[in-house]
Amino acid sequence: MCTAVTYQTKDFYMGRTLDYEFSYGDEVTITPRGYGFVLRHPHRNLQENVFQTKYAIIGMAHVAGAYPLYYDAINEKGLGMAGLNFVGNAVYQEEKEGKDNITQFEFIPWILGNCATLEEAKTLLSRINLTKTPFSEGLPTSPLHWIIADETGAITVESMSDGLHIYDNPVGALTNNPPFEQQMFQLNNYMHLSPKQPTNQFSDELSLHTYSRGMGALGLPGDLSSMSRFVRVAFTKMHAVSGDSEKESVSQFFHILGSVDQQRGCCEVADGKYEITLYTSCCNASKGIYYYTTYENHQITAVHMHRENLDGKDLIRYPLITGEQILEQN
Amino acid sequence: MCTAVTYQTKDFYMGRTLDYEFSYGDEVTITPRGYGFVLRHPHRNLQENVFQTKYAIIGMAHVAGAYPLYYDAINEKGLGMAGLNFVGNAVYQEEKEGKDNITQFEFIPWILGNCATLEEAKTLLSRINLTKTPFSEGLPTSPLHWIIADETGAITVESMSDGLHIYDNPVGALTNNPPFEQQMFQLNNYMHLSPKQPTNQFSDELSLHTYSRGMGALGLPGDLSSMSRFVRVAFTKMHAVSGDSEKESVSQFFHILGSVDQQRGCCEVADGKYEITLYTSCCNASKGIYYYTTYENHQITAVHMHRENLDGKDLIRYPLITGEQILEQN
Amino acid sequence: MCTAVTYQTKDFYMGRTLDYEFSYGDEVTITPRGYGFVLRHPHRNLQENVFQTKYAIIGMAHVAGAYPLYYDAINEKGLGMAGLNFVGNAVYQEEKEGKDNITQFEFIPWILGNCATLEEAKTLLSRINLTKTPFSEGLPTSPLHWIIADETGAITVESMSDGLHIYDNPVGALTNNPPFEQQMFQLNNYMHLSPKQPTNQFSDELSLHTYSRGMGALGLPGDLSSMSRFVRVAFTKMHAVSGDSEKESVSQFFHILGSVDQQRGCCEVADGKYEITLYTSCCNASKGIYYYTTYENHQITAVHMHRENLDGKDLIRYPLITGEQILEQN
Amino acid sequence: MCTAVTYQTKDFYMGRTLDYEFSYGDEVTITPRGYGFVLRHPHRNLQENVFQTKYAIIGMAHVAGAYPLYYDAINEKGLGMAGLNFVGNAVYQEEKEGKDNITQFEFIPWILGNCATLEEAKTLLSRINLTKTPFSEGLPTSPLHWIIADETGAITVESMSDGLHIYDNPVGALTNNPPFEQQMFQLNNYMHLSPKQPTNQFSDELSLHTYSRGMGALGLPGDLSSMSRFVRVAFTKMHAVSGDSEKESVSQFFHILGSVDQQRGCCEVADGKYEITLYTSCCNASKGIYYYTTYENHQITAVHMHRENLDGKDLIRYPLITGEQILEQN
Repeated sequence: MCTAVTYQTKDFYMGRTLDYEFSYGDEVTITPRGYGFVLRHPHRNLQENVFQTKYAIIGMAHVAGAYPLYYDAINEKGLGMAGLNFVGNAVYQEEKEGKDNITQFEFIPWILGNCATLEEAKTLLSRINLTKTPFSEGLPTSPLHWIIADETGAITVESMSDGLHIYDNPVGALTNNPPFEQQMFQLNNYMHLSPKQPTNQFSDELSLHTYSRGMGALGLPGDLSSMSRFVRVAFTKMHAVSGDSEKESVSQFFHILGSVDQQRGCCEVADGKYEITLYTSCCNASKGIYYYTTYENHQITAVHMHRENLDGKDLIRYPLITGEQILEQN
Repeated sequence: MCTAVTYQTKDFYMGRTLDYEFSYGDEVTITPRGYGFVLRHPHRNLQENVFQTKYAIIGMAHVAGAYPLYYDAINEKGLGMAGLNFVGNAVYQEEKEGKDNITQFEFIPWILGNCATLEEAKTLLSRINLTKTPFSEGLPTSPLHWIIADETGAITVESMSDGLHIYDNPVGALTNNPPFEQQMFQLNNYMHLSPKQPTNQFSDELSLHTYSRGMGALGLPGDLSSMSRFVRVAFTKMHAVSGDSEKESVSQFFHILGSVDQQRGCCEVADGKYEITLYTSCCNASKGIYYYTTYENHQITAVHMHRENLDGKDLIRYPLITGEQILEQN
Repeated sequence: MCTAVTYQTKDFYMGRTLDYEFSYGDEVTITPRGYGFVLRHPHRNLQENVFQTKYAIIGMAHVAGAYPLYYDAINEKGLGMAGLNFVGNAVYQEEKEGKDNITQFEFIPWILGNCATLEEAKTLLSRINLTKTPFSEGLPTSPLHWIIADETGAITVESMSDGLHIYDNPVGALTNNPPFEQQMFQLNNYMHLSPKQPTNQFSDELSLHTYSRGMGALGLPGDLSSMSRFVRVAFTKMHAVSGDSEKESVSQFFHILGSVDQQRGCCEVADGKYEITLYTSCCNASKGIYYYTTYENHQITAVHMHRENLDGKDLIRYPLITGEQILEQN
Repeated sequence: MCTAVTYQTKDFYMGRTLDYEFSYGDEVTITPRGYGFVLRHPHRNLQENVFQTKYAIIGMAHVAGAYPLYYDAINEKGLGMAGLNFVGNAVYQEEKEGKDNITQFEFIPWILGNCATLEEAKTLLSRINLTKTPFSEGLPTSPLHWIIADETGAITVESMSDGLHIYDNPVGALTNNPPFEQQMFQLNNYMHLSPKQPTNQFSDELSLHTYSRGMGALGLPGDLSSMSRFVRVAFTKMHAVSGDSEKESVSQFFHILGSVDQQRGCCEVADGKYEITLYTSCCNASKGIYYYTTYENHQITAVHMHRENLDGKDLIRYPLITGEQILEQN
């Protein structure tokens, strides 16, 4: 399915894998400041239900017409957000009066277009009502939950049958099912895992030994289910060590998400159909740079928000570089 | 420590990760045909104990003087070989009369320089005696075991206290401890793992469900110990699916070895010292191309053996490109 | 902590282990019909807040004065109930008007004294409010949750910070934390476990084999934590096979709960203090027989409700036979 | 299959479970001193190949004619021995000159009839050759390995394709496959398990908590395969705590072996056929008492060797008490 994670060195980074068996056709997409989004539901404070982005946004999107359907993005202020599959648990609401009625596909531009910080996002969330209105017949509502983060922390947003949940996310990670609270609870079962070698607590009378390096994390799950990916990426991220230069940070970030890479063949979703990590992203939220790799291209590609005119009228779109870019050394 | 694996599409591929807390300074090194190696032990059929390579070799080596100390390599005939740490189990022999007395660091050039096929390698192995003579005081004997492979199959070679063992390696994978037979045996405990979703065998009376994709491999170990890496890379490789073009094959190969990538921070070998995947290699053994990535460079770099003069006198050496090569899309 | 389970052959059985580091002094206790319980909270329909048991009850209790503080019990109609530790999750309520305000220690006699069936219990539960009033200063409120069952099924009752939850319990098992819904969810991760041997799904190309019987349940947790006990006893119970005679049923029941026996030494709760299975019970709810073993007595002891005068005035109490009753065959 | 274990308090105890899908008809059998066993192979020092037991033996046996085919036994000197299934690995030898040629079914009487101590047993083992001669056509050779123990320690004896192996057994436990050295090695993977609660090593930044007692052994396997039973019984035994009185010791011993009890239904060996723990034994080797329970009888039954005439001529046999002996308390 997908995994999102945050990482802090000198700058604040956030990114995700998108795992699926086919791509909708995605592009790195910049939404400039002042870009108008027409909301599907009437909004008491907005003329003609149009809100205009205060902040420019860069992220991965399927662009439908002139509408960027973002999977994950950051804005120029350093706030980031990603939507991840939440099949069977996401339940959106009917329109409610007195609330900001935001349909699921509007959620990312609504938050990133309006909020400079996680704090501001929380305020906006306090009056939100997430609705089920689909983008179009061909693009039905996606069952999602979200991670929203800046350098001060991260939260998880889940709209379920019992209402909207907003959780602190101290790990700075999100995968898919089960709901976030259960994922967090599950970490208790792994509290003994460590990057250091284990000591013999089994018996003083037996001369057990560590026959390999790396035995301190025996018990860490290695499969591709969403619960196992959550535990694994949490362990990897919480222990990640890197220099704080841009290249070292970005490199380490891709190693962290590499721990939950879905290899073609290991997750068969139908006969001969395999879910793979279609792309992996890493945003420098502090500097507005969107890095990505694709399944067939290990080289990291970068798109810099601030190299574009952020006060333009139109979306700025970069099709993904998807073929393996091999450097020929001779 | 390390993981080696083979992969067959249209061509035959072989490669490995090298995991350690520091690098000795490694280079992609081509040994031309006819290059002379002075054996440390007298050899009945060789004048002045010098053997000359019949076949050119390309691989990763620490070059000491003009001597390529290969970690892993292929030759121009499509035979490949890699040495992996085997600490606590590798026991080399004293010189024995009537045998080919080959010291540990000579083993890779001896096999790849002399043999065109795995079959020929087996013949040569039938009269080998692996000795403990170190390269120099500063470069003591490494405790290793080896995988040797071509498109017909793979074998594992282990010199232990009870003598030399040569095993068929039907997985085409090798990590470190415990000895190979035990690694293979361990796979029996994971025979139920599958890329397909599990079915409910727990109870007909309970409506259990697969709440996530990828649950068929629940139980696959996710830590960095050598036994867990063996199981994980075996599962990933045995199920790997890719196109058979060069780029697709190479890309998939790096995804397979990505499943055992050692992230900095997750394997602490001393206070603040971390074992990481220093480099990952993928050789197209059929075409003589050595691909590699380094921990700090996700882009794949290639060195082509056949673009060089393989009948030259000297080693041809390519220092590694180690910094992150980011493609700037704007 | 504790494990409860139900079992159906010709008759309906229910029982539990009680795991702790010391005993409060427990006795098999029969409460006769018409025994008066003074409720701690006023009740609109009861004179002087006294309710009289319609049905006689047999179970394990700490008797304080003339008050049976039941841990687990059945009534003469075949309804059973057990309270199990639920530390950190049990939250009882303040008294509420319009409800049956029942304090925690009154809950078992309230249900078993009033209800002939699970269906009736559900009706009574629909107007219950579980309160925190302690029995006495020396016997503070226990944080518990409950399983209630008869031959038609089982439910779990949990009073938490977000209110009272009543769940169907299709497994007919209960341990401790986390809350029941999470325990049930966890079973999804074990759906592939089977009493039958696994088949090789790892790879067609590897000749893996089942080197031992019983490999179909590899992955079943073996530790004493409450989540692991839940999974283990669920697996054992769902697959349990026995004859349906009284002796065969009872014997099998003790084998089922034996799978979660806590051995002295394996769960250290303070220096040199160990939680053990103080007693294990098995009630034939259909016939009113209470069977038990204690940690130090493997022989099964039985107390038959219907061998007593169930219309008497006083509690009938049997101190436990706790020493090992060894049959000397010569 | 089976599990054997030793236990030391004031006295030395040894016992086992015998797990199978049917019984051959077993009896607690005492072989008196001076009982003659005709060896199947000629022996250089024995007249007519008959050896006479120096020491009386008590154990569980299938008696064929007047021949006790022991599964497990102790002798009056405190030496014990048990044979456990070793399918696929046990390889017996052809008769060899100059050796004590002992066939598999003679092994237990040969050792226990001749040796007072483990030390003496080791001496006798130094010239043994285990052969494959079957007892009769109807009772073919069993593939077994053995544990031999007294209060000074324990050893494991395995006759395999590469010869006879005698290992120190510091755990004092044996199950079935794989060979003992691999079982011991496997314990390294569990060295972090503890009866104490785990501490949070996953991350300082996450407030993980122990939501249940007994979480220190998370990762202990709970299934019935022989490798999992070995790890589980080793953990249970190494941490076992009990008083040292006879009753406390025996009670604890049965709790230790209870951890590997095979419940009917959990190990299906053919359609509707289940391997169960047919009997569990506990010998006080110091005092010559054989305790046992059967699957259908939880009460412990005892047979005392020293209550019999150990200088008699004939085997003394006690059929097992197999029905549930329930103590009726009212």
